[in-house]
Amino acid sequence: MTLRLFSYFRSSASYRVRIALAVKGLPYEYVAVHLMKGHQKEDAHHARNPLEQIPALELEIEGKTHVVAQSLAILELLEELHPSPALLPKDLFLRCRARELAELVNAGIQPHQNLTTMGRLDALEKGAGRKSAIHYNEVGLTTFEERVKETAGLYAIGDSPSFADVCLVPQMYSARRFDIDVASRYPTLTRIDHALNELPGFAAAHPDRQPDAAA
Amino acid sequence: MTLRLFSYFRSSASYRVRIALAVKGLPYEYVAVHLMKGHQKEDAHHARNPLEQIPALELEIEGKTHVVAQSLAILELLEELHPSPALLPKDLFLRCRARELAELVNAGIQPHQNLTTMGRLDALEKGAGRKSAIHYNEVGLTTFEERVKETAGLYAIGDSPSFADVCLVPQMYSARRFDIDVASRYPTLTRIDHALNELPGFAAAHPDRQPDAAA
Repeated sequence: MTLRLFSYFRSSASYRVRIALAVKGLPYEYVAVHLMKGHQKEDAHHARNPLEQIPALELEIEGKTHVVAQSLAILELLEELHPSPALLPKDLFLRCRARELAELVNAGIQPHQNLTTMGRLDALEKGAGRKSAIHYNEVGLTTFEERVKETAGLYAIGDSPSFADVCLVPQMYSARRFDIDVASRYPTLTRIDHALNELPGFAAAHPDRQPDAAA
Repeated sequence: MTLRLFSYFRSSASYRVRIALAVKGLPYEYVAVHLMKGHQKEDAHHARNPLEQIPALELEIEGKTHVVAQSLAILELLEELHPSPALLPKDLFLRCRARELAELVNAGIQPHQNLTTMGRLDALEKGAGRKSAIHYNEVGLTTFEERVKETAGLYAIGDSPSFADVCLVPQMYSARRFDIDVASRYPTLTRIDHALNELPGFAAAHPDRQPDAAA
């Protein structure tokens, strides 16, 4: 069966899953769920994902159709189903570090920049949502920049892309949208991000190249 | 070498790692890092974890000493180093679901209830931090309650504890501290939480039983 990805072009969590699918060479049907119009809250999407979030991936596992959610859980599943090319190093410490950096973005930055969170803050004070999102982007990326120096090669962990990179590229895209001067503040991350964006899988997953990009 | 866990008794992310260590029967030295006094920001802790967060776990992997961070990355590492007793099901879909539920707590609730986040909100409006933490606890646990019905047995995924349970128990503890009436609102989660707390590993990890509990 065809994989179906429920995605929104600018959603950084969707972007992560698009990268993993493309790097692993898995074709999929793209189903656009318009976050700004609240389509993730409609009945059809709630039925497939009561989390009312994207990304959600519909796929067949051992003969049964499932819809799975949460980008990092999806990445782990794709790694187990399609181990090659790998997005986790073999070395146990480095595997852990790849996941740590992924979580630094997933739990440390992204929850503070999603539309709902920002909207709730704006209701308290105009502009507070954006200000807070910028704060957490800066704190998280500063830590990522410091931490990544211990393991970086061409990419975050040596010379093969990993979960850390899969999360980094969408976050750098978000940070630029918040007008954070990433090039001067995070030189190591900027170099890695640039190298990653030259890889076909990462390039194909870019928001500008998605069917709903103009929406 | 002895494992060393940098922990704070009430930190829900530390609580998760304590559960995993106890379930897997791994003894460790408990090093208290007082979050309310900002000890996680001191130089000694920054050197071991530039994320300035707890939990952090010092351990030896393939002959080398490392400090690893981010609770879910630590859980994955412990699962790889000490696969038995397992905290992930064997079935690929259920493994994904266990991780999805864990992330629902880790990325969906916890970032909104940590002390820094609440402090920033309180600076905008008195009481806003607590109000927001309660909101995200309620949204996340409502979703968890709905989602878990598909897989629940004695615990969140069938009859063996998994990452989903490791994250659920500390979250239920937090929700009660926010005076959320979990018993009436989340009957399935309450039943599972009760069953889990009767397991020796989960019981040993409870905040009240930690060396810094009185601090």
